[in-house]
Amino acid sequence: MALLGLDLGGTKLALALLKEDGSVIKRKTAQVKDTRGGTRVGQLIKGQISDVINYSSDSGDEIKAIGISVPGISHAGKGTVWAPNIPGWEDYPLLAEVSSVTKEIPVVIDSDRACCIMGEVWKGNARGCRDAVFLAIGTGIGAGIIINGEILRGSHDIAGAIGWMALSRPFSSLYSGYGCFEYHASGDGIGRIAREYLEGESSYTGKLRKKAVEKITSYDVFDAYAKGDTLGAAVINQCVEFWGMAAANLVSLFNPEKIIFGGGVFGPAVSLIPVIKEEAAKWAQPISINQVVFDKSDLEGDAGVIGAGYLALKRLG
Amino acid sequence: MALLGLDLGGTKLALALLKEDGSVIKRKTAQVKDTRGGTRVGQLIKGQISDVINYSSDSGDEIKAIGISVPGISHAGKGTVWAPNIPGWEDYPLLAEVSSVTKEIPVVIDSDRACCIMGEVWKGNARGCRDAVFLAIGTGIGAGIIINGEILRGSHDIAGAIGWMALSRPFSSLYSGYGCFEYHASGDGIGRIAREYLEGESSYTGKLRKKAVEKITSYDVFDAYAKGDTLGAAVINQCVEFWGMAAANLVSLFNPEKIIFGGGVFGPAVSLIPVIKEEAAKWAQPISINQVVFDKSDLEGDAGVIGAGYLALKRLG
Repeated sequence: MALLGLDLGGTKLALALLKEDGSVIKRKTAQVKDTRGGTRVGQLIKGQISDVINYSSDSGDEIKAIGISVPGISHAGKGTVWAPNIPGWEDYPLLAEVSSVTKEIPVVIDSDRACCIMGEVWKGNARGCRDAVFLAIGTGIGAGIIINGEILRGSHDIAGAIGWMALSRPFSSLYSGYGCFEYHASGDGIGRIAREYLEGESSYTGKLRKKAVEKITSYDVFDAYAKGDTLGAAVINQCVEFWGMAAANLVSLFNPEKIIFGGGVFGPAVSLIPVIKEEAAKWAQPISINQVVFDKSDLEGDAGVIGAGYLALKRLG
Repeated sequence: MALLGLDLGGTKLALALLKEDGSVIKRKTAQVKDTRGGTRVGQLIKGQISDVINYSSDSGDEIKAIGISVPGISHAGKGTVWAPNIPGWEDYPLLAEVSSVTKEIPVVIDSDRACCIMGEVWKGNARGCRDAVFLAIGTGIGAGIIINGEILRGSHDIAGAIGWMALSRPFSSLYSGYGCFEYHASGDGIGRIAREYLEGESSYTGKLRKKAVEKITSYDVFDAYAKGDTLGAAVINQCVEFWGMAAANLVSLFNPEKIIFGGGVFGPAVSLIPVIKEEAAKWAQPISINQVVFDKSDLEGDAGVIGAGYLALKRLG
């Protein structure tokens, strides 16, 4: 038997045909060239699934279940998906769309952050954990949370929206549309805070002055930080404070075994995990902080597709 | 059949013999006069259970299960209890202690905050909810959290330690021993912040100057606030900010149906729940905040004993 995992991202669709033990039989990626018509993305997924079903039945690895990771929210009860970056996917009936090719094969759809923590629990750095969090810090910020082995969904499937975490008083209208944590400490936030600093500190003449202010990104800030730049250090040190406070709040509330730091920022921020733990230890419930391990993602870009495969396996019971 | 709920507090032990529908057959309280010897408290509980078992078998309401709410942490796997205010209850074997009188009757022990949300879900203002939080703000701060109908325990039974929530940068060493949220916005915190303000603002000559600074408590602050005092208003308005931020973080992370505000502070702060919701709405995930209701505790002082009875009922399956 085999499992099929899919991970839909902004520019590509990754597929992995897996054995029951998680080993990869075959991998494939398809470019998501044009998301202007959201139905085209649905048709791309349907076509790719159809191809892999044909391949697997020819090769004798019959697919028993399919998992799909989506960059947004899955409404499991309705089989619909909300994905902010795909036009028309406000409440898109993805389950119905793929059902003409999946037929009797069970299909489970979940958010990318939920799939990432499931992947790490199955085959990555949270292996065997019952209570764990994947803190995804990239362009935006979200959390995939596992409680007693199950994904935390909430009453309307939108639990884990940690980018909205309130961490810095008083409220600023700048936070609207992002959330306080995401405003300050996402990948986009790192660039944004650096640009604010550059506009405010006319005396600074370091590396980050070599580029037009409006073009400064998180890559520039990490590069400046690595080279000992004072403004780069100020921005990254403030991020460490926010990441530590947010992780501390996860520790105090959930008493997890592991927090996995993933997303594009971890990446360059992986080496900061020990100082993030130090910051978190100041704030968190003092017993819980000694019961948790902070770690990087082991599967990195594969966490979503492997986790989708694991959801498929779990669906089989 | 009948269920027995017990709620151990700092000064009294409440017992309720309940029908399966939650209606009360008989109530009883016993004074906890002397907690110096923690084993005495265990013996008090055992003796009271024994009395009620005898009463119920005489009256034909046979007890089928027992639930006990404790002011601390229950380690369900071991049957032991940690309660900071009872000497010797660091890891006290309460289940073993009562087993000589409960014999074959199943006994479930849980924290007061877990019992409170269970009580509200069964018979109070969170009736029928699958995802709800009891935010207990009294001398300290804790949260009882229900996810898909089950109590959030965490990997070592200490989930819900929301008093440690990081909400105000930078870290202050004053937070050690309390947590940031509890330092600022618990019942004790209200008195503490008022005393700090009084020491810092020599120009203030209002109502709170009529008492020695070191004797100011949350009662005095709420009284001054109710009478329009400026310093009382400053302290309570800051608490509303903290309560709103913490509630917003629960909303963004858990996407719950209800947050119930309980504990001694709600109480006098019940009328503030609408402005707490306004503050939370600034910070929280904008869809989730429209899916949640903020409400007061319906059962108030009975939430723990009713919730303990509900845990007993759930134990029967």
